[in-house]
Amino acid sequence: MTIPSATISRLVTYLRILEQLETEEVARTNSHDLAERAQVNAFQVRKDLAYFGRFGTRGMGYTVPVLKRELMRVLGLTQRWRVIIVGMGRLGQAIANYPVGSDYQFEYVGLFDVNPALIGQRHQGLTIQPMDELHEFMKTHQVDMGFLAVPPEKAQAAAQALAEAGVRGILNFAPTVLQPRLIATENGDEISEEWHNVTIENVDFLAGMKRLAFYLLNPNQKNDQPEDNT
Amino acid sequence: MTIPSATISRLVTYLRILEQLETEEVARTNSHDLAERAQVNAFQVRKDLAYFGRFGTRGMGYTVPVLKRELMRVLGLTQRWRVIIVGMGRLGQAIANYPVGSDYQFEYVGLFDVNPALIGQRHQGLTIQPMDELHEFMKTHQVDMGFLAVPPEKAQAAAQALAEAGVRGILNFAPTVLQPRLIATENGDEISEEWHNVTIENVDFLAGMKRLAFYLLNPNQKNDQPEDNT
Repeated sequence: MTIPSATISRLVTYLRILEQLETEEVARTNSHDLAERAQVNAFQVRKDLAYFGRFGTRGMGYTVPVLKRELMRVLGLTQRWRVIIVGMGRLGQAIANYPVGSDYQFEYVGLFDVNPALIGQRHQGLTIQPMDELHEFMKTHQVDMGFLAVPPEKAQAAAQALAEAGVRGILNFAPTVLQPRLIATENGDEISEEWHNVTIENVDFLAGMKRLAFYLLNPNQKNDQPEDNT
Repeated sequence: MTIPSATISRLVTYLRILEQLETEEVARTNSHDLAERAQVNAFQVRKDLAYFGRFGTRGMGYTVPVLKRELMRVLGLTQRWRVIIVGMGRLGQAIANYPVGSDYQFEYVGLFDVNPALIGQRHQGLTIQPMDELHEFMKTHQVDMGFLAVPPEKAQAAAQALAEAGVRGILNFAPTVLQPRLIATENGDEISEEWHNVTIENVDFLAGMKRLAFYLLNPNQKNDQPEDNT
């Protein structure tokens, strides 16, 4: 069964809401409450959750810690993820120091940059290493994700380097669309084998800024409008 | 006509692709090319664009600079946006120094924080001001958007302060779901009038990280799956 990408995004939102409810010591919730907080409709909430099983009791709603734990399990957040950051300028440093929820087991295991002025600096108990040591590093460390925080014009090459070094997941913070299919390899313009297994997610400051511009310009449009809910 | 929120997100992606094509001096494109690069299908591209008019010629595709300019106009990016950043720790500093496209007229007009150690520091030609001067600042400056880069536990109060000071658009970088509807006002637990006109967009590092975890855990699922394209 294919699950819409938007469903995964909404699960992340529901989880965040459940975490806040837990902080507020709220024990129970329901699809209407979740829907209002997530700014979708209750049918959407039930439909999204139904992809993964039955979490509530009809008419009784959901137990906050139980649903939270189930969503964490569905999203893969109960397991450990080893992360490297590539690009340790201001953005990379902000990421390294960003408060990752204490519930999650995301762990930074390596920091990389090409800038000699940054190499050797320490953040979060790790020393920034030169980018060309990545291949060697991967031989001795398990790395599940790479966070890409390089300037946009360097993102494609850096993503390629990550893929070739065997990193399967890339969280791209650069405001550019990575092109796994169009990349040039040493063999010519073929698709790089390594890219087939790489999953890319984008975090784009500018995208949010542009969406905000649209909604400010068009106040009759609502940014909580779900897609084609027929 | 109500336009799905996901369409706006895709327009932002199409625009980013068109900008890259322009950099690569590609003059023409079509819905199939855009679809492949955006990892959606061509029907989706045409449907998304059709909300805003007819941009191409049947069988001829689109002229890259023309479609780019049209999407910029649709998204409101041809006009000037005056932005303040609230929260000037590492994240706020990274945002202030993030390369905003030279095509856009986003302009930082003020930087705010509550931390005395940060107040008075200069970034991008601006001096960080105390948060409690925001109201006064708004009397003499036009502010279109506030970028919220405070810790999650302070985000709700800071967003409230922005709304009360008259900021209509908030780009929230804190990993928390802002609750315009549930906020307590000076009059009790009523809905704050100011919130009715506030548009919130979220940029969440952790959301992307969680989505990535899901797709790494479920490699049979594709993160380019559009929603319910029936």
